[in-house]
Amino acid sequence: MGATMPEPVPPTMRAAVLRGVKDLVLEERPVPVPGEREVLIRVSAVGTCGSDVHYYEHGRIGDFVVDAPLVLGHEASGVVVGAGPGASLHEVGQRVSLEPGVPCFTCAQCRLGRYNLCPAMRFFATPPIDGAFCEYVVLHEEFAHAVPDALSDDAAALLEPLSVGVWSARKARVTPGTRVLITGAGPIGLVALQTARVFGASEVVVSDVRPRRLAIARELGAVTVDVSATTLAEAGVEADVLIECSGHPPAIGEAIRRVGRAGRVVLVGMGGDEIPLPLAHVQNREIEVTGTFRYANTWPTAISLATSGQIDLDRLATHHFGLSGTEQALTAAATDPTTIKAMVHPNDQT
Amino acid sequence: MGATMPEPVPPTMRAAVLRGVKDLVLEERPVPVPGEREVLIRVSAVGTCGSDVHYYEHGRIGDFVVDAPLVLGHEASGVVVGAGPGASLHEVGQRVSLEPGVPCFTCAQCRLGRYNLCPAMRFFATPPIDGAFCEYVVLHEEFAHAVPDALSDDAAALLEPLSVGVWSARKARVTPGTRVLITGAGPIGLVALQTARVFGASEVVVSDVRPRRLAIARELGAVTVDVSATTLAEAGVEADVLIECSGHPPAIGEAIRRVGRAGRVVLVGMGGDEIPLPLAHVQNREIEVTGTFRYANTWPTAISLATSGQIDLDRLATHHFGLSGTEQALTAAATDPTTIKAMVHPNDQT
Amino acid sequence: MGATMPEPVPPTMRAAVLRGVKDLVLEERPVPVPGEREVLIRVSAVGTCGSDVHYYEHGRIGDFVVDAPLVLGHEASGVVVGAGPGASLHEVGQRVSLEPGVPCFTCAQCRLGRYNLCPAMRFFATPPIDGAFCEYVVLHEEFAHAVPDALSDDAAALLEPLSVGVWSARKARVTPGTRVLITGAGPIGLVALQTARVFGASEVVVSDVRPRRLAIARELGAVTVDVSATTLAEAGVEADVLIECSGHPPAIGEAIRRVGRAGRVVLVGMGGDEIPLPLAHVQNREIEVTGTFRYANTWPTAISLATSGQIDLDRLATHHFGLSGTEQALTAAATDPTTIKAMVHPNDQT
Amino acid sequence: MGATMPEPVPPTMRAAVLRGVKDLVLEERPVPVPGEREVLIRVSAVGTCGSDVHYYEHGRIGDFVVDAPLVLGHEASGVVVGAGPGASLHEVGQRVSLEPGVPCFTCAQCRLGRYNLCPAMRFFATPPIDGAFCEYVVLHEEFAHAVPDALSDDAAALLEPLSVGVWSARKARVTPGTRVLITGAGPIGLVALQTARVFGASEVVVSDVRPRRLAIARELGAVTVDVSATTLAEAGVEADVLIECSGHPPAIGEAIRRVGRAGRVVLVGMGGDEIPLPLAHVQNREIEVTGTFRYANTWPTAISLATSGQIDLDRLATHHFGLSGTEQALTAAATDPTTIKAMVHPNDQT
Repeated sequence: MGATMPEPVPPTMRAAVLRGVKDLVLEERPVPVPGEREVLIRVSAVGTCGSDVHYYEHGRIGDFVVDAPLVLGHEASGVVVGAGPGASLHEVGQRVSLEPGVPCFTCAQCRLGRYNLCPAMRFFATPPIDGAFCEYVVLHEEFAHAVPDALSDDAAALLEPLSVGVWSARKARVTPGTRVLITGAGPIGLVALQTARVFGASEVVVSDVRPRRLAIARELGAVTVDVSATTLAEAGVEADVLIECSGHPPAIGEAIRRVGRAGRVVLVGMGGDEIPLPLAHVQNREIEVTGTFRYANTWPTAISLATSGQIDLDRLATHHFGLSGTEQALTAAATDPTTIKAMVHPNDQT
Repeated sequence: MGATMPEPVPPTMRAAVLRGVKDLVLEERPVPVPGEREVLIRVSAVGTCGSDVHYYEHGRIGDFVVDAPLVLGHEASGVVVGAGPGASLHEVGQRVSLEPGVPCFTCAQCRLGRYNLCPAMRFFATPPIDGAFCEYVVLHEEFAHAVPDALSDDAAALLEPLSVGVWSARKARVTPGTRVLITGAGPIGLVALQTARVFGASEVVVSDVRPRRLAIARELGAVTVDVSATTLAEAGVEADVLIECSGHPPAIGEAIRRVGRAGRVVLVGMGGDEIPLPLAHVQNREIEVTGTFRYANTWPTAISLATSGQIDLDRLATHHFGLSGTEQALTAAATDPTTIKAMVHPNDQT
Repeated sequence: MGATMPEPVPPTMRAAVLRGVKDLVLEERPVPVPGEREVLIRVSAVGTCGSDVHYYEHGRIGDFVVDAPLVLGHEASGVVVGAGPGASLHEVGQRVSLEPGVPCFTCAQCRLGRYNLCPAMRFFATPPIDGAFCEYVVLHEEFAHAVPDALSDDAAALLEPLSVGVWSARKARVTPGTRVLITGAGPIGLVALQTARVFGASEVVVSDVRPRRLAIARELGAVTVDVSATTLAEAGVEADVLIECSGHPPAIGEAIRRVGRAGRVVLVGMGGDEIPLPLAHVQNREIEVTGTFRYANTWPTAISLATSGQIDLDRLATHHFGLSGTEQALTAAATDPTTIKAMVHPNDQT
Repeated sequence: MGATMPEPVPPTMRAAVLRGVKDLVLEERPVPVPGEREVLIRVSAVGTCGSDVHYYEHGRIGDFVVDAPLVLGHEASGVVVGAGPGASLHEVGQRVSLEPGVPCFTCAQCRLGRYNLCPAMRFFATPPIDGAFCEYVVLHEEFAHAVPDALSDDAAALLEPLSVGVWSARKARVTPGTRVLITGAGPIGLVALQTARVFGASEVVVSDVRPRRLAIARELGAVTVDVSATTLAEAGVEADVLIECSGHPPAIGEAIRRVGRAGRVVLVGMGGDEIPLPLAHVQNREIEVTGTFRYANTWPTAISLATSGQIDLDRLATHHFGLSGTEQALTAAATDPTTIKAMVHPNDQT
C-alpha cells in the first residue's frame, strides 16, 4: 500500500476524552499520523468494557491511574484509510479488527511468544495510552487483523472479548468431553460460554445472580444456576474446568471446590489483590489454578469462529450510540438491565 | 518365583502399633500372607515422615482419624522373601524399595495414568491401612521396585521422599536454566532442592528460619535466605518456580509474589484448608499454581538418580533406631535439632 | 449386581468363525462364562472393519497370523446379561459399548496411562483372541461403557471407530482454527473428518479417488480433492494438520509436503513397513510426525460427542446383516460401492 | 549507551570472503555501520561448522546457492564496540555471544514464539547474508547475549552449537531417567551428548564409525557403539529418545527401530530430501518424530549451562587460526582427524 491515502482524511477528529471521574467530554483533536509500520484506521464500532466503566467511575484500576486526559475504548473495528512508512499488509479500504495491545516485539517475553506479558506493552485505554472512542486511531499493521465482509462491524469489534474467551479456553485446555463451570454471566462469561462450547465442552454450567443474564446463558446453550437461590454444591455441579468471570472473591473459593481431579481453574475476572485458595482441595485433586492477562495469538482463531457462525457476537451488541453517546454507553449497563454490550460508533453522525 | 518361600518366615512378627495419641507399643502380630500378585517383604529400613509424627502427636491428619490401632511408616525398603499367587516379577532375595500406595488400577483415574488420584488408593500408614514399622509387609509386586546393590537400605527407603521431589520438579517443569525457590528446608525441601538441581535448575534458593537446616541446604548447593532475618523480597529473590515445602500459610503468599512471568508454583507442604492467593500477581504474570498429592510413576526416575549418585539420600539419614526405638525416632526431630531423617530398622535386633 | 443373571442365558450360542482364508462358518459354541470383574454381554451390533476384511481375505495382518479358528469383529455394542465375581458397575439390562482391548492394568505402560501400548493387551479379533461376531461375549466391566438410550445400537458399536478419530484428533492437537487435511475417505477418514470438526477445525480437506466417498465427505462438511484428477499441491491445499487415513505410501509423502510450519502429521492408516519421509520439509518446518495405535481413554469423549448429536454415526451404518450374513458383511465393501460400514446384528434371527 | 563509540573503530576491516567453490580470499571491506537497535561487535572467536565447510566445498546447501561473494561463519563471540540508534542494552566493552539469526519479530511465527521458523529470518553465512569470518559485524542488540567473564571467547562462540543441543533436548523432552541414543559423534553429536546429560538423561549411547570420536564421547560420559563393527540392535541398544546427528539416511531407519514405546525421535542431522520411516514401528509404539530447524530462546539456558561448568565447550575447541587461516580451519576436519572444532580468531594478528 505504501504511504498512499486515497480517502480524504480530515486534519482533526472528535474524541471522547475522560478528564476525571465521571467527567467525559468530546474534544476536537488532530487525527494521528501513522508511524513506522502503522496504519491509520477510521473507527467503525467500539464495545464498552467493564474496565472502561471502571475508569469512568473511579478514575483508576489498581495501579493504573487516570492522571491525564484519556480516551477509553479498546474493543474496536474499523477501516484502513492510510499507512505509515513500511506498512504494506493492508490495502486502503480493508476492514479490520483491532488487537488493542502492541508489545515491544523483541524482549524475552515477546521472543517466547508470550507477548501479552511484555513489560513494554502499549495497550489501548490504559493510562497513558489512548483508546478508540474517537474517529481515527493508528495501530501496528500486524495488529490490525483483516476481517471478511461476512463479519459485521460490531462482531469485528467484539473479537476482542472473544479473544478473552479463546485465551481462557486454551488455558483451561477445554476439549471435547470437558465439563465446564463458568461463574459470572457478564459479557466475558457469555463469551467464555460460547467459546467453551466450540472447544467441544460436553456441558457448560453458568452461575450468576441476575435472572436476565442466566436466561441469555441458557439461550446460548448453558445449564444455569442462580446462586442467589442455591449453592453450586447444592445444585450438584461437578466440573473439570472452572472459568471464573465474576471477580467476586467469596464465590471463587466455593467454585473451586466444585472442580474435580486434575481439573483446571482459570481466573479471568479481576477481584482485588487476594482470594482464598482452598489448599487441601487443590492439593488432593492436583488442580491447576492460573490467571489470564489479556491474550496472545488469539485473533486468527477468533476470526475463524465468528466468521463461520460457530459463535454469535452480534447477539451481544444490545445497545448502540454515536460518539456523543459515549457516556450513555458507559452507563448503560448500570441503568438498563437488558444491556449486554453497549456499542459506540464514532463515525456515525450523532 | 511362583509361591516358593525358601527363607524361613516366622509365623509372627513384631510391629510398632499406634493405639492413640502418643501411645505406641510393640505388639506381636501374625506375619501377613501375600495375596494375588503380592510379595512378602522383610523390612530393612523405614524413614519417619512428618505425617507419621503428626499422627503420633495428634491422632489424625485432617479427615483421616486414627480410630483403631495403626502401624505407621511408609518410607521403606526391604527384601522379597515370598510371593503370593500370580506374583512372578521378583526372585526371593531381591532387594526392593516400597512404593507405599497401591491404587485400584482399573478406574478412570488409573486408566489415565493419574493413579495417585485413584479414589480407592490404599496407602501405607493412612487409616485404616497399616504401614511399615514392623518386620514384614506385603505389597503388590509392581510396587516393590527392584533396586541395585549399590543403593543402601536407607537410600532405598528414602526413594519415597525423593519421589515427592521428582513429582514436584515435574509439576513445576524444572529444566536447565530454571530459577527455583524452595520454601522450607525440612526433609522434603532438602530433597526438592537436590531434585531441582538434577533437573537442571540454574539456581536454587532455599528459605527457612532454622540455621542448621539452611547450612545443610547450602552444603547441597543452594543459596539460602533466613526469613527470620530478612524477607524474600529484601533478599532480592526472583524465581521462575516456587516449590512450597513449608506448609506455613503466611509465608506462601509472600513467596508466590517472588515468582515471575509465566512461572509455576507447586504447593507440596500441607498448610491447612485455605491459603491467601495473590490474585492480581498471579493474573498479571499468568502464573500456574498447583498442588501435589503424593506421586505417580516416579520410582524409575528416583532409582536412576539415587543409583547414579546424582542425588545423595544417605546424607539425609542422620539417626538410626531398631523397632523398639520407633517412638524415639518419631520424637527425634523435636528433641534433637541435628535430625533430618530418623530411620527405623525393624529387623535389627534392638 | 453380584452374580445374578435374571435373563435366561442359553448354554450355547452361534459364532461366525474364520477357519482359513475366505473360510467362514457358523458354529455352535458354549456361551462364555464371565471371569473376575467381567460382564457377560449379549451382542447387539458389530461393525465390520478393514482389519476384519483383511484377516478374512489374507488370513493375516503383518505378524498376526490366523493359525487357529478365530471369531472376528471388534466394533460392538450389546446388553449386559450377567456378571462374574467382583463385577458391580452395571445392572443387568444396561446397554453398553464395548472397548475391545483390555490391557494388563499394572505394567509400566498401563500405570503411565498409555494402556493402548500395554504389551499384554488382549484385543478382540486379534489372534488368538476371539471377537464379537457371535451372540455373547465377556468383557472387563470397566471396558463395557454404559451408553444412554438415545444412542442406537449401531452408533454404540461405532464408538470404536469414533475412538480412532478422537485419538487422532488429540494426537494432532486439533483445536479451533486448525486447518486439517485428511487423506482417505474410508470409514476412518469420514469419522476423522467429523471428529476434526467437533474439535473446532476451521477447515477440513478430504482427499480420495472415489467420487462416492468424496460426496459423503462433502455432505459431512469437508472440502474435497479428487487426487485422481489433481494433486494436493495443484489444489492449493495448505494444512496445519494431516491425518493420514489412506495407508497408501506414495500419497503420504505428497500429503506431508502440504503441512506447514509447526504442523502435525498423524499416521492412522496402515501402509506397510516403511514410508518415505520428506526430511528437509519436516526439519525446515519442525513438523511433528507420529502414528496411532488404537486409542486410550477415548470412550467418555466419544459417548459425549455421539450422544449430543455433534457426530452422526448412524449415517455410516449403510448395510445390515444377521449373523449368518457375516460373510456378506465382510465382502460388502468390495461388491457394493455404496457401502460405508456393514453392520452385523448377531442376535437377529437371520 | 546511546551512540557513543569510545573504542577507535577503523574504517575498514579484513574479511574472509568465499568467491566460489574452494575460492576463499581475504578482502578489505568497510566496517559495517550498526542500524536501528544494532550493535557493532569486534569478533573474538568463530567456530567452523559443517555447513561452512559444505558451502566452501560445494558452493551451495540445497536451495541456498552462493552466487555472490559470501562471508561464512555463524558461531561467534565478540565485544560490543559501538551502537546504532535506539540500542541501549549493552555497554561498550561488553563481551557477547552472537545468536546469528535475526527474525522479523512481528510475523505470525515470531508472535507465536517460533521465531526460528520466521520466513524473513536473516541468518549469518546463509546467502545472501554475510557471516562472522571478519573483524567486525553488526547485530540486533537482543541477539548479542551478554556473557560473564568466566566464559572464554571460544566457549561464548560455541554457545551456538550448544543451542542446537539444547533445542534438540527440549524437542526430545529429555528429563531425568530418559535413555538417549545419539547417532553421530561430530561436534553436534558431542554437544547433544553433554546436553542430554545435563537434562538428566540416565544413559546416553553414542554411535559412530570413527574411533577417535567415540573415545571422546566416552570421555564425556557416553556408552558408545562402533556401528562399523556391530549394529545397534546387536549391541542391545534400547532408547526412549533418539537424537539423530549423523544425517546418514541408511542409519536413521535402524536407529529409529531402537526407540521404544512413546519415544521421541529428533532429526538434527541434515541428510537429503527423504529418509525411510519405519511406519509400523512408529505406529505400534506411537513414537513422535520431528526435525529441528536451528533453535529459539536457547541462549539464556546455554549461557547458564556453560557458565556453571555443567557443560565443557572449551574441550571441543581443538584447533585455532587467525583470519588468514580461515581456509585451513575449513579444511582441518578433513585433514586432521583429531579436529573437533577449528576456531578462527579474526582479530588475532595472523
